[in-house]
Order: sequence, then C-alpha cells, then structure tokens
Amino acid sequence: MKSTKVSWIQGQWAGSAEATQAAYLNNARSLKAEHPDLIVLPELVHTPYFPVEEHPAAFDWAIDKDHEFVLQWQELARELSCVVIFPFFEKRAPGVYQNSAFVFERDGSIAALYRKSHIPDDPGFFEKYYFMPGDTGFEVIDTSAGKLGLLICWDQWFPEPARILALKGAQLLIYPTAIGWDNTEPPELYPHQLEAWRISMRAHSIANGVYTLAVNRVGTEQHLRFWGNSFLARPDGSLALTSDDSLVGTQTAIIDWEMIDTQRRVWPFFRDRRIDLYGDLLKRWITP
Amino acid sequence: MKSTKVSWIQGQWAGSAEATQAAYLNNARSLKAEHPDLIVLPELVHTPYFPVEEHPAAFDWAIDKDHEFVLQWQELARELSCVVIFPFFEKRAPGVYQNSAFVFERDGSIAALYRKSHIPDDPGFFEKYYFMPGDTGFEVIDTSAGKLGLLICWDQWFPEPARILALKGAQLLIYPTAIGWDNTEPPELYPHQLEAWRISMRAHSIANGVYTLAVNRVGTEQHLRFWGNSFLARPDGSLALTSDDSLVGTQTAIIDWEMIDTQRRVWPFFRDRRIDLYGDLLKRWITP
Repeated sequence: MKSTKVSWIQGQWAGSAEATQAAYLNNARSLKAEHPDLIVLPELVHTPYFPVEEHPAAFDWAIDKDHEFVLQWQELARELSCVVIFPFFEKRAPGVYQNSAFVFERDGSIAALYRKSHIPDDPGFFEKYYFMPGDTGFEVIDTSAGKLGLLICWDQWFPEPARILALKGAQLLIYPTAIGWDNTEPPELYPHQLEAWRISMRAHSIANGVYTLAVNRVGTEQHLRFWGNSFLARPDGSLALTSDDSLVGTQTAIIDWEMIDTQRRVWPFFRDRRIDLYGDLLKRWITP
Repeated sequence: MKSTKVSWIQGQWAGSAEATQAAYLNNARSLKAEHPDLIVLPELVHTPYFPVEEHPAAFDWAIDKDHEFVLQWQELARELSCVVIFPFFEKRAPGVYQNSAFVFERDGSIAALYRKSHIPDDPGFFEKYYFMPGDTGFEVIDTSAGKLGLLICWDQWFPEPARILALKGAQLLIYPTAIGWDNTEPPELYPHQLEAWRISMRAHSIANGVYTLAVNRVGTEQHLRFWGNSFLARPDGSLALTSDDSLVGTQTAIIDWEMIDTQRRVWPFFRDRRIDLYGDLLKRWITP
C-alpha cells in the first residue's frame, strides 16, 4: 500500500445524542464521492462532554457495544467501504464504564476495540469519576487503511504509548480528542495550551517517525470552549493539514507511507535506543 | 531556592583547540558582572566537529580528565562562583573515548561527569566510530544552581532519558549540542529539521513539567553549517529565550522554579502514567 486517504470529522454537540449522531453520519456520507480509506471521529461522539461535572445521572449517556449507534457506524463503514474509528462512552458492565473506540473494517466487521488508558482529572474534566482505566494495552490494529496505533485524548500527552505502538509497527497514531479552553482560566494561557498540545503530538511523530492524527470537537459547553484544531502531522513533525477552531465538517488528506522509511533513514532513532538504561521508566516516581 | 540565573555561550571553532578554549573562557569571564548561577557550554567545546569524517588521527583531539582545559573551567567556576558545564572529548583509556561533560560546583569541585548515552551515526556525523556509548546512566545532579538533568546532543531526540531524569527530580534538562545543516542536503529541509529539533525538546518540557536548555555551536565546518538557535524552554514548552543562528557570545535568562509546580498542577501527567502497561519500552523492536 503506497498511500491512504484519511478524512476526519470535526463536530460539536448538537443538543441530543440522536441529533449529534445524525450530524456526524451526514458528514461522513458527504465524503462518499471522495472515497476515503479511513474516517476518524472525535472522542465521545454521541454525548456532550458530560465529565465537565460529576453527576450520577450522566452514566445514562453510556451505551452497550451493540447499541444502534454502533451498528450505524458499522453500516457506514460498509456503505463507504472504508475503515471507521468511532469513539463512544461504553457501558461494559453495571458500574463499569469506559472511554472507548471501535475500529471497523471496510466490510463493517470489528477490527479492534480500544479503551483509553490514561484518565485525566482536573476541574471541568472529571474523567476519573466516569471511566475505568483501559485494560486493552497498546496493540497495533492492522487494517486495510494501514497499521493504526489508536489512543484517546489524555493518552496524547504521554510519550510511552506512542513509543510502544511504534515499536510494534504502527504507521499512524490516532488521537480522538475532546479538549478545550476553560473560561474560568486566564485567556492569555490559551495559545500556550493549544501550542503545547500540538507540540506534544508532533513530537511523537518525530521521535517515532510516524504520522499522527488528532481529531477534536468544537463548540462551547458550559464553561468549556473546545478548540478544534484537528491536524495531521507527518513523520518529520511537519503539519500536513490542520482544521481551525470553528470548523464543523470534514477534511481529507493523503498519507504517503513511503515518508516513514525516508524519515527514519534521516534520523534512525530506533537503532540507538539504550534499552539497558531504561528500566526506571517502569517506576512511578524515584526519590534518592 | 526561588530562581536560578543561567547563561549559555554559543560559540564556534576558532582554528585551534587553544584559541577556541580561550574564546569560550573570555566569553565566560564577560559574564562576571551578571553573576550567573550556571554557565552552560556546547558539546565538544575545544575541538572542531571532527566526527564529520572518520580518521584515526582525530582521536588526538581527546583529552584526559586532568587536562589543563578541564582545570581552566574548574578555575573559572571558582572565579565566578558559579556552576559550570564543560563538555569535552574524553580519553578514558587507550582506545576508549567518550563524548563527556563535567559539571563543576561554584567552588570548582567536580559535581558530576556525564557520558553521552545515545550515539548517532549518519553521513557527516560519524560518532559511532569515535565514542563508546556512555555508561553513566541518567542521574540527577543536585547542584547549588538546581537539580540538573544533563544529557548531550543526540540524547535530545529520545523521550526516555528526559522522562527518567524527571522521575528522579530533575528541574532543568540540559543538552549541550553540535547540530547543523548539511550542505549536501536540499536546503528546503533545513527549516523542518530545525523545527523538529526544537519541538522534540520543548515536548520534553511539556511531558515532564521541567525547564529545558539546549546550547549549540555556530559556524561552518567542511560541509556542515551549525545552526545555533540555542534556547531555554519553560515547563509549559514556551520559549523563554532563544539565540539566532549566528550569535557568538552569551545569553542569560532567569529560571523561576515555582513554574514547575504551577505547570504540574495544570497538567498532572505523572499522576496518571500507566506503568503497568509500559513493559514493552524495554524491548528493542517488537514484531508480531
């Protein structure tokens, strides 16, 4: 496979789960004539960003793995004959909820289910209340659209899962995301936060010689303004295509897989890792 | 300690070891009235970038640990009462050479010796021929100018040593460097390479909530044009101060240590690392 055509949908909460799901499905169908190989949606597609507060009733947003929303994306994958990544709030068992994402193959079959490993918790992002830390680990998903390394949002700040997926052969790291500015924070922090977010993932591309795709939502929900700015970075960290902070819709880019080999010849980092010196990475904190 | 005044010297090869050493010493002495707490020099201070080619005679550039160049920097540390980082080509034993850096305390005593762990090798940077991979590991150097995490050049591309040093309490990562553009490569790659270099280290700051300082040389040596652009990044990845690509001289910045605590409250990544899932980081490569 020489290239992959990837599309993403930057969307927003539309007032109800049904209306939001319908809007994302409509956007996906609008891509039909472009024949994408891969469509990526943002984190928690069918819900508002309910972790903005802790409320027991919010667990009602969760759906089972055979919910009609899931089936609709499987059907969409078949219809457009393309790989689809659908992130959703998963009810796994009573009292056991996850921040998850399905990967569907072109025929609608399930290629993988990933469950977010790193769970944040800070004012306005109370995710530790809602989500059990994922137990799927970091496994490469070998699809007809490429070898995918799927992670979710907060995972993006950690070099470790990106590295492990690259060591396992991932060609494209994918981060469905729901991140925004908090109106209660000083606005002068906003550009620094956006830039730090972008730098962290571009650095995963550089350190590992892989493509990286982040797909974020937009819109204001309570005191959070989701910053959009979805982007695709190349293996040298350069930006192939970016969305702005208000786009509701789709963007499409071509991934040239050969650039991975080219870039890793320029900077062959994997050759030089000092695994004999890395044991302390498995410790939580180290004091003298 | 609330703050540290750090100075760096961006310099160039001056035609002989003695002239180069003298120029760096003069630049350091020019800082006397500023009373810096810490002075950082670039990689391989007293030599040309001899790994531009492989030649047995180039091993003659190496010096012993008690060479007068070393003593001169110890004396300088005493004279200015400041911590000094002096990177040099070390002859450790017959046939055993290292790319090393001394850290001297304000009284001229030796605080640490670090030996570069990750050794590059690509056309024009034939370092594997010259340098044994370092065996000092990644240890925090607790100085009167702060808890320093000292690494050298190629180490900068790897998230692993940065992470380990932060886990051990480092507040400032320091990367003496000799990196440049290669005249034999297409010039349109130059800005991408510089940007990737900067992003990789700014990402270490962000992922670990620490300051990062890179100090590079300038000047053209054979087909290499060293790109300068030394910089200090804050714990949120923003740039506190940068040098341009031609400065020969010093720059000075104030490090406010409290920003580490502030930034780690905003994004508390250490709390959320999934060390139970990181075991594969100790593998060289992983195939199914």
